[in-house]
Amino acid sequence: MAAKKGLLERLAVSPVIGDGGFVFALEKRGYVKAGPWTPEAAVEDPEAVRQLHREFLRAGSDVMQAFTFYASEDKLVNRGNHAGQKIGVEAINRAAAKLSKEVAAEGGALCLGGLSQCPSYLTGLGEQKVKEEFRKQVKVFVEEDLDFLLCEYFEHVEEMEWAIQVCKETNKAVAANMCIGPDGDMHGVSAAECAIRMARAGADVVGVNCHFDPFVSLETIKKMKAGLDAAGLSPYLMVQPLAYHTPDAGRQGFIDLPEFPFALEGRICTRWDMHRYAREAYEIGVRYIGGCCGFEPYHIRAVAEELSAERGCLPAGSEKHDMWGAGLKMHTKPWVRARANREYWEKCQPASGRPFCPSMSKPDNWEITAGHEDLKQHDTETTADEMKRVLEFKKQ
Amino acid sequence: MAAKKGLLERLAVSPVIGDGGFVFALEKRGYVKAGPWTPEAAVEDPEAVRQLHREFLRAGSDVMQAFTFYASEDKLVNRGNHAGQKIGVEAINRAAAKLSKEVAAEGGALCLGGLSQCPSYLTGLGEQKVKEEFRKQVKVFVEEDLDFLLCEYFEHVEEMEWAIQVCKETNKAVAANMCIGPDGDMHGVSAAECAIRMARAGADVVGVNCHFDPFVSLETIKKMKAGLDAAGLSPYLMVQPLAYHTPDAGRQGFIDLPEFPFALEGRICTRWDMHRYAREAYEIGVRYIGGCCGFEPYHIRAVAEELSAERGCLPAGSEKHDMWGAGLKMHTKPWVRARANREYWEKCQPASGRPFCPSMSKPDNWEITAGHEDLKQHDTETTADEMKRVLEFKKQ
Amino acid sequence: MAAKKGLLERLAVSPVIGDGGFVFALEKRGYVKAGPWTPEAAVEDPEAVRQLHREFLRAGSDVMQAFTFYASEDKLVNRGNHAGQKIGVEAINRAAAKLSKEVAAEGGALCLGGLSQCPSYLTGLGEQKVKEEFRKQVKVFVEEDLDFLLCEYFEHVEEMEWAIQVCKETNKAVAANMCIGPDGDMHGVSAAECAIRMARAGADVVGVNCHFDPFVSLETIKKMKAGLDAAGLSPYLMVQPLAYHTPDAGRQGFIDLPEFPFALEGRICTRWDMHRYAREAYEIGVRYIGGCCGFEPYHIRAVAEELSAERGCLPAGSEKHDMWGAGLKMHTKPWVRARANREYWEKCQPASGRPFCPSMSKPDNWEITAGHEDLKQHDTETTADEMKRVLEFKKQ
Amino acid sequence: MAAKKGLLERLAVSPVIGDGGFVFALEKRGYVKAGPWTPEAAVEDPEAVRQLHREFLRAGSDVMQAFTFYASEDKLVNRGNHAGQKIGVEAINRAAAKLSKEVAAEGGALCLGGLSQCPSYLTGLGEQKVKEEFRKQVKVFVEEDLDFLLCEYFEHVEEMEWAIQVCKETNKAVAANMCIGPDGDMHGVSAAECAIRMARAGADVVGVNCHFDPFVSLETIKKMKAGLDAAGLSPYLMVQPLAYHTPDAGRQGFIDLPEFPFALEGRICTRWDMHRYAREAYEIGVRYIGGCCGFEPYHIRAVAEELSAERGCLPAGSEKHDMWGAGLKMHTKPWVRARANREYWEKCQPASGRPFCPSMSKPDNWEITAGHEDLKQHDTETTADEMKRVLEFKKQ
Repeated sequence: MAAKKGLLERLAVSPVIGDGGFVFALEKRGYVKAGPWTPEAAVEDPEAVRQLHREFLRAGSDVMQAFTFYASEDKLVNRGNHAGQKIGVEAINRAAAKLSKEVAAEGGALCLGGLSQCPSYLTGLGEQKVKEEFRKQVKVFVEEDLDFLLCEYFEHVEEMEWAIQVCKETNKAVAANMCIGPDGDMHGVSAAECAIRMARAGADVVGVNCHFDPFVSLETIKKMKAGLDAAGLSPYLMVQPLAYHTPDAGRQGFIDLPEFPFALEGRICTRWDMHRYAREAYEIGVRYIGGCCGFEPYHIRAVAEELSAERGCLPAGSEKHDMWGAGLKMHTKPWVRARANREYWEKCQPASGRPFCPSMSKPDNWEITAGHEDLKQHDTETTADEMKRVLEFKKQ
Repeated sequence: MAAKKGLLERLAVSPVIGDGGFVFALEKRGYVKAGPWTPEAAVEDPEAVRQLHREFLRAGSDVMQAFTFYASEDKLVNRGNHAGQKIGVEAINRAAAKLSKEVAAEGGALCLGGLSQCPSYLTGLGEQKVKEEFRKQVKVFVEEDLDFLLCEYFEHVEEMEWAIQVCKETNKAVAANMCIGPDGDMHGVSAAECAIRMARAGADVVGVNCHFDPFVSLETIKKMKAGLDAAGLSPYLMVQPLAYHTPDAGRQGFIDLPEFPFALEGRICTRWDMHRYAREAYEIGVRYIGGCCGFEPYHIRAVAEELSAERGCLPAGSEKHDMWGAGLKMHTKPWVRARANREYWEKCQPASGRPFCPSMSKPDNWEITAGHEDLKQHDTETTADEMKRVLEFKKQ
Repeated sequence: MAAKKGLLERLAVSPVIGDGGFVFALEKRGYVKAGPWTPEAAVEDPEAVRQLHREFLRAGSDVMQAFTFYASEDKLVNRGNHAGQKIGVEAINRAAAKLSKEVAAEGGALCLGGLSQCPSYLTGLGEQKVKEEFRKQVKVFVEEDLDFLLCEYFEHVEEMEWAIQVCKETNKAVAANMCIGPDGDMHGVSAAECAIRMARAGADVVGVNCHFDPFVSLETIKKMKAGLDAAGLSPYLMVQPLAYHTPDAGRQGFIDLPEFPFALEGRICTRWDMHRYAREAYEIGVRYIGGCCGFEPYHIRAVAEELSAERGCLPAGSEKHDMWGAGLKMHTKPWVRARANREYWEKCQPASGRPFCPSMSKPDNWEITAGHEDLKQHDTETTADEMKRVLEFKKQ
Repeated sequence: MAAKKGLLERLAVSPVIGDGGFVFALEKRGYVKAGPWTPEAAVEDPEAVRQLHREFLRAGSDVMQAFTFYASEDKLVNRGNHAGQKIGVEAINRAAAKLSKEVAAEGGALCLGGLSQCPSYLTGLGEQKVKEEFRKQVKVFVEEDLDFLLCEYFEHVEEMEWAIQVCKETNKAVAANMCIGPDGDMHGVSAAECAIRMARAGADVVGVNCHFDPFVSLETIKKMKAGLDAAGLSPYLMVQPLAYHTPDAGRQGFIDLPEFPFALEGRICTRWDMHRYAREAYEIGVRYIGGCCGFEPYHIRAVAEELSAERGCLPAGSEKHDMWGAGLKMHTKPWVRARANREYWEKCQPASGRPFCPSMSKPDNWEITAGHEDLKQHDTETTADEMKRVLEFKKQ
């Protein structure tokens, strides 16, 4: 394993396949709470986290992303979250790092630590305070010697630049993803400009994650690439979108859709959507292709199967699948055996089974962002008065 | 453990919550192949199976169903499936039984072994041969001393009667579910008549599983109950439906829908659908309330949360949820905090995000059933000639 | 005109094509008020009524139905309707009769007068009072010597029998349509039983009109035919359905759908739906095939084009159409010319262009019928108190 | 009539309400052939045309647009159309002009003659030939002394400029509408630039018609207005959109949608859509507000009802409607009376009744425009070879 190739070496020769979103997958399994979305399960239920890593490894992921989403200290104590006090930022990041390293070692994968945006920025506490938050996590990632760093899920490019700068204080390769769509960041910075600023801040890999579906996200990547090309910059490109269809999302993505987060089921992508996603991403020039919220192991397997020629192998998990549903040749009923082919699934237009529901929704659109009073974070629980206020605002 | 109350004692005092469908959940995780749908993962990947058991236990399941779906010997060798030869019917059933017993012991749950319909019946091999298949599995369940037996996923009530009769050769309690809808079984026996025949064959608990969504399945249960009442029979009632909306399915259920099995995502029920399902099932008089294909742990948790007053407790997993999405009070954005209440989610009409897809599909309708040439099973793989024939039939 | 063949003679040799619904068509043109739906336009705007007759004649209608829908005296004065006092029942029925006779003469069509259910029945005034209402209309139809009589749009078979009995006091042929679906009439009489009672009351032609779409209506006809066959009765069969898709309507049909009557647009049938309707109706054995609310002249033309072989002619209006859209061969754009064929239109699955709307609705279901206080009719306008009461009921 | 105020005088003080699309309305009534879409009915069936004019007048139209759509000589003989030879360009335009003048006089409305794009332009015959075509029509409009001229339904702004120039050879006021969407004309000229060029060519009123729904068309108008403002130009603004929802149309509008022209029913706007359209148009600053294909008299009545305060009157046809469905207070059933209010209809999300159909379609996208071989027009009928070629192209 001494000869294990690093991220940039791998990207130079073949696509690298990411993993899927841990918070949504583990919420469904019972180990993460929707709302805070923090990863204390790395300490509380390591078996569940380890099992999910292994499933993604088996599905074809080349990287094991430590489960450190939203694991900044200010988030771990936000609005009555006790994970910060009871377990602590260092313990959570260290446990997560060890789990990713352990499973990565089982399959020659790379391990990485991730930073995400933090409440201190939204509350307006400024560069030094925000960077301090990031340094607490990065310190652990370096001590655990993870292979590279990823700044992911940032809505404001200014905060992203600070995160990249902190990561560049190490000698690790740095990847960076904004969680934005084609309309750019929450302050109105265009997608192209975001990409340029990330590359100039030192990111080796640049792209987007979360908030939008695979196809909307690729529209964003196209704009980023055009900007980077025009600026003479050529970082590797990366994308880790949602596995939820979001043609109707506004600037802030799926969070504003009324179905978020407990009624998104009807929007879940099929494995065939993922074949198309992987192919289109690769053709645009993206080389780090993964997933975010909603991605389950079988979605990543579909990405790996689509790119099996480019990668020179099928994932281990394909022994329980076979390409394009060929396993259906073993089905009892002849009309299901008749579906064991690519043409059938490529043409399928899946029904929702919900004739009383629409196909698109109007997103909430509160038009408030960093610095606004209602976005200020605090340690104490949301009060009844605060709840009353948001419910009244909602009615308008 | 001597004092552990049995199934019938439990049903007498409070609702018993089942678990979810293992084959679909493990297919998405990479351990089961769609097509044969056999459970050799119990031997090949016990960690993955154990983890899923634990998730359902944590979600509130009162029973741990050994992962023995389709684990009859004739199915394990059907159409090129090597699980029968390489691992063997006894090893798979025994491993599955031990896993369920092990996890059940962690939480005071009951463990049970299940039988399902077998290819020998479809091929027309007759009562003795079919019963022999069942006895191979039941022998293991008795040796492992599982708490009770379940005959589940039968399309023909005649075969179901044989299965119940084999189970009644033991002294275990016996539950029995047809996988039928309101139109009755594949030979045209009505739902009411199926229920009566199951009860008369000796089943202590009677109902349906799989093939239809929760609300269609409850329509079937109503017909069964009416028939049982009229016949003066009063077994406990049970339901373990799909977690996929199937208002458009025909007599054979979701298997005939064109989305089966790889494009069903848009049909997945939300947790709020499951609240409604649990309430309606309880009010009809069903006392064993679980799930089948598509049910993930969070679906079972929703059932357990809805029935928490009747059961006198919340499931362990609710620490990561809180009733009716109350965890959202901890969300960063105020408009998401505004969704932390029951009214919001009960009114939500979730969009599909797929404006180019319909809301309902026309099911395949090949109109062939037990005894038909195309349903005859064999050990060897499906040949190219067989595939050509079904594809040609499909075009008509 | 002496040699003009009567209705029964025509039905014996070939399908007879009805016309479309005047109240909805003239509401869109500005001459009928939705709510009362009464036909005083026959007196107020005869040109508009005559023009619509001519359009249906040109489209292929073999009959000109006098515009006497809801033209009973009790309806003409109901809830503040002034048509009864200002114009009078006789004047309206006579003007309508003359218009139909005039246009029928232009094209060898038959003319007929129609009776529909009346408020006196709903209010519970009894047989004698109800029959008196009918006789006022029938007297005019006989004086004007219309070719035959039609009792149409009855929700209760008892009232229908009284209407048929009044018609049988003349020597005219009598046709009769309930406005019911497969579940039968508002008192729970089955569709089959309704048909039998209509035939036994003396109707020469029996069927359904209004309230349901063509395909639901044909399901009702199948049930009627089965009942008639079993009873050894063989009247001619007739159907005049809505041109609105109503798969989601309940027992009372489209009136209960939330879109009634001002947001039904998305449900309007295409001409190709009407080809299919005409063919299926004919194959079931229906010989009088027309339309009701929503049918525009081009819908009737589609019926006539579909049955052109059976009738031995195309309608006059086909000079501006050509079968299966062949006129598109003259379109400027090549990709529209490519649509000038039957296969294209038969396969077309038309989109709604309304991604924020569902495909089906839940009908109102107030479960009240004849005799209920809220259905009692009166001459005076609906009071503010009455409106308040219904709006409060609605909220529950 | 000497004192009748002209178009510009009227626009200066209050909104002017246009009429609806004659070709689609008369196609449904049986007098226009889809494909050529030419208006020879003005000669062949003047009663039908006169009746439609009267319905729009009654609905509130302030203008009677002579039925001269596509009445250029080259169009009247295109691809086997015999209207050119048998009736002739002058006769059709003159008959249409007289009908509009006649009905306008009945209600103090203005009459106008319209020019639309002609095959000679698409075939590339050049400015002089195209202008000659226009002059044949304008000559008749001047001889008949229509009140003003309208150049409408132009896909290329260059041809539009030629049309305006021909109209400016008279002393009539000139209005001008491109049939484009927010993406601009078929040669890639932006909507803003089109508006500027129309105004500079001399149009007194500038806007769009046809091809897109009301709300998409208003997006186009906003872009036009922004361009005009920036250029210091201030013609009156006009909009006459489709009455079909087209959120999914591409650059060429509804013609490319697979439902065009015979399966658009599901897309028809309700009267409540028209209330919203009229209000939004007025608020943007549009003062000539009418309709195009799909608009029926009741749609125009809804526009007139919405703007009744601004115009100081209700249309005559409102005697058969009452605002916001108040006529329903006279309905027999209480739950329909409960719908007699604005809130009910504004909240209504109408279902399609077509659960097997999608909500949006993918438009055809042949990417060919003026000058392309397949767009060249000719007098002779489309040959079998031509049809074969387009059908083969379609399959690709």
